[in-house]
This record gives sequence, C-alpha cells and structure tokens, in this order.
Amino acid sequence: MKSQVEKAEEFRSLHQAKHILVLPNAWDVPSARVFEDAGFPAIATSSAALSVSLGYPDGEKIGKDELFTVVRKIAGILTIPLSADVESGFGASIEQLSDTIRRVIESGAVGLNIEDISDFEKKALVPIEKQVQRLKAARRTSDSLGIPLVINARTDAYRFAAGDEKSKLEETIRREKAYEAAGADCLYPMGLTDKETIATFVKAVNKPVNIMARKGAPTISELEKIGVKRLSLGPGPMYASIGLLRRIAQELKQNGTYDSLLTGAITFDELNALAKPKR
Amino acid sequence: MKSQVEKAEEFRSLHQAKHILVLPNAWDVPSARVFEDAGFPAIATSSAALSVSLGYPDGEKIGKDELFTVVRKIAGILTIPLSADVESGFGASIEQLSDTIRRVIESGAVGLNIEDISDFEKKALVPIEKQVQRLKAARRTSDSLGIPLVINARTDAYRFAAGDEKSKLEETIRREKAYEAAGADCLYPMGLTDKETIATFVKAVNKPVNIMARKGAPTISELEKIGVKRLSLGPGPMYASIGLLRRIAQELKQNGTYDSLLTGAITFDELNALAKPKR
Repeated sequence: MKSQVEKAEEFRSLHQAKHILVLPNAWDVPSARVFEDAGFPAIATSSAALSVSLGYPDGEKIGKDELFTVVRKIAGILTIPLSADVESGFGASIEQLSDTIRRVIESGAVGLNIEDISDFEKKALVPIEKQVQRLKAARRTSDSLGIPLVINARTDAYRFAAGDEKSKLEETIRREKAYEAAGADCLYPMGLTDKETIATFVKAVNKPVNIMARKGAPTISELEKIGVKRLSLGPGPMYASIGLLRRIAQELKQNGTYDSLLTGAITFDELNALAKPKR
Repeated sequence: MKSQVEKAEEFRSLHQAKHILVLPNAWDVPSARVFEDAGFPAIATSSAALSVSLGYPDGEKIGKDELFTVVRKIAGILTIPLSADVESGFGASIEQLSDTIRRVIESGAVGLNIEDISDFEKKALVPIEKQVQRLKAARRTSDSLGIPLVINARTDAYRFAAGDEKSKLEETIRREKAYEAAGADCLYPMGLTDKETIATFVKAVNKPVNIMARKGAPTISELEKIGVKRLSLGPGPMYASIGLLRRIAQELKQNGTYDSLLTGAITFDELNALAKPKR
C-alpha cells in the first residue's frame, strides 16, 4: 500500500503528464469507487454534492466534522489519490484555515481545492492580498506536516469581479498569478468555458490549469491541445444522477412503468462490491 | 406541521387507498427530496443503498448510530412520511430489537421494514416462531411509545427456504400469515415477481402486500388489478444512478466527451434546493 506522501507525489505527477488529468468528482463511497473502477487515476470531492448529500446547501453550511468524516471514508476505501474540496477553507482566520488543512491531511486526502469567496450569498471575493496569505499558510501547514498536498487554487473572479468580461479575465489572471507565487500547484479559474479565453489564461500563467466540464466547454482533446492539464467534473455527476432520479419518478407517475429504473442499472453484487476496496 | 402520530396514520391510510402506494426508496437527503418533489406521498429507505453510500456492504455491517443519523436527516427534511429499512432488526435479542424500534421512532420515521434473515452470508432464515416473537415485540415497543409504526414484515422464504418453487411459496405464505397475526401491517414477500404467483400470495393473506419493482415484475396497473397495495423500488434508484455514473465514466474514457454528464442534469440551484424542506 502506498504511503500518503507517495500518493501526494503520484497525484502531483498526474498534473505533469502528456495527457490531461480527468478528475471525476464524488460525494460518497459508491460514487468515488465507481470512478476508480472505471480506471481514473485520482478522484476529487465536490463540496456542493457532498454537502447536499448530507442535507446542507453549498457554501460552508456543513460542519468540518461531518465533511471530513465523509472525506476520510472516501480516502480510506480508494487505492488512488483523493483531493478534497474545502470551499474557502472554513474560517476567516489563518488558525481556522490551518486546522482545515490539518484535517485534510488527517482524513487521508492528498490534495485540496480552495477558493477565494468571502461571502457566498453576496458573491464577494476575498481581497487578493488576504488570499495570498491564506495560500501561503496552507502551503506552510502542508509542508510542516510532511504531506506535499496538491493545492488547487480556485478563483471566482471571472464570475464575481467588477467590470466587463475583459476586466474580469484580467482580474482572474492577476489573482491566479499571485496564487501560484504563493505556493499553489494548480490554478482553477471558475467560470471559464470559452476555448479562446481558456487558451489566453493558460498562456498567462505557469502552473497547471484546471477547467470544469460544463455546457459549452471544449472537449477533452481540445483542452489538451490548448495546454489545460486537468479537467474536473464539479457537482456534474450528482446533477446527472438526480436528473435520472427525476426521470424515474416522472415515468412512474405518468406511465406507471419503471423502464428507466432498470435500464443500464447495476446489480446488487456490483453495488455491494463498491463498499469494498478495489483489488 | 404534522405530528409523528399524524404522519404514521397518514402512512397507514396510504395502504388502504384505491390506488397502489408507489414508495420510492432513498439513501440520502437529495435522493429522498427529489422523490418528494415529484409528488410521491411517502418515502422509504433502502438498507443496501444507504449502507453502501456510507461504505458498508448490505447485511447489518453498518452500525446503528450511523444508520439512524441518516434516517434522522432524511425524516427531518421531508414533510411526508418516511419508512426505515432496519434489515433483520440489528440484534438477535428482543432487547436489541426493541432498541432498534425505539431508534426508528426517535429518528422521526413512521414505518419500518423488518426481514427474517438470521445470517446474510449463509442465506439462513430466522425460525418462524422466533420471528413471530420479534414482530410482537416490535409492535409492543411501537405501541408503548405511542407511535403507531407501520410494520412491513418481509420474508425471504421464497429465496432461501428449502424445496421447489411450490414449497417455497407455501413457506412464504405460512410465514406471512403468522407475521400478520403477530401485528405486521404490511407483508413483503421478497423475490416474488411472477404475476400469477403474486396474485396467489395476495389471495392467501389479509393485510396489504408490498412488491418490489424489478425486472420481470408486473406494471403498476397490473399490480393494482391483482390487489397489491404497495410497490417499493428497493435499491433500484441507486442501481440506476451508479449505472449512469458508469456510462459517464465510459464516455469520458472512450470518447473524451461528456454528453451523458450534461444530458438531463439538474442545475446548481435545483441541487441546493434539495437540501431545504419542500415548501
């Protein structure tokens, strides 16, 4: 079995590979294990999917204890690296953030997503200087605990910053350049879907770039060509799953049949196998 | 807001309605809430789906604390009745079983599934006399705590009893007749899918009958015609969801595209709304 340091190094090296790292997001044991079985080399959690699965809206409404109980379960059953989404780090102070980083490590994850949102409802960003201090603290905590966490620094400047598209992109680049200088390993400009805009961003920074698979975003081969190193799915797999449950419900209600329940479904033995580590 | 007694009575009356009660099974908050939104009048948990979602294979490998934490979350967010699947009751003694029933009530559920499996791996059944004592104890605990739980007594005799199909069906009927006399409110002959066999069973008993939607089972209108009062989905919705995640994974791996991730998916706002009670 690989040590946590080895897993962290393996995860880091996946960002330097010839091919883009496709990183599926999960929220519980079976959603993570089914992607591992399908051959993906690493998994990430989605904060929105994980929080809602436990009854909390996205936006740090979930407590750290519940969050990391699930992260620990998922990390514990996977044989491949796991990255944990910790939203804005759960706490405005450096002490609170450092505690969050410590818990990421204790849970067995080897990477994390951290974003620069100061107020989810008000769509407010953390001031850039403050976020730089936070990323430096995250890096410091990770290094001091001896686990080289892969820090994916997300900015929501393209969604929440003032001004037109051009100035939003400029602010996105300005922030991510500061974040990579502060010790981030991967850069995640949330909201970028247009191919040319993504290409401009990739050229402006030095570290690997993470893009989210969403409507209008380029295909995997297109992203690879413009130099994107990582594609994550965000809450997409849960959006799709709940969409299917809705269709099953509608068919039951409207037709009195259950074809969509049975078509393409896995079996009891296959489900049970997802509660055991992959051999 | 309805009291727990009112919810239990409402759930009970759904078994006496003109139309069959279609009872979708869930395992976490969003899977339950999406079925509530679709207009179903009650929800049940699936032990297999709920256990695996927390990293335990089916068969009482999960601890009661974790099980009822989830049941409580689901019951707490739903405005409609919830029935909890407690497998064989979590404990061979009457004291352990009574504790389980007490926890069902404390979690806010108003019904339960209880099955007569004594050993999951060996496919062994609880002796009929012992199961009768267990059902009487469940009824007694429910009554003494003042919540008229709807007890769905499942037998696995059609799967695990000795002999040919005919003697298995006879044992199924013999057991379920004893279970209804012991205080069960609904009878659940696991494994019956053939229309004629189900019709024979329904005629042989007096209480409402629960059938599981599965390959080869009749449609809802056919079940209604032969007098079945309740159709549950078992772990089916999770089998279907994981099947979809597999197809998403395969498409990503094989084609480098993510159409199955996006097609029919819900939105971020729709997902977040599932973490709040229905208005």
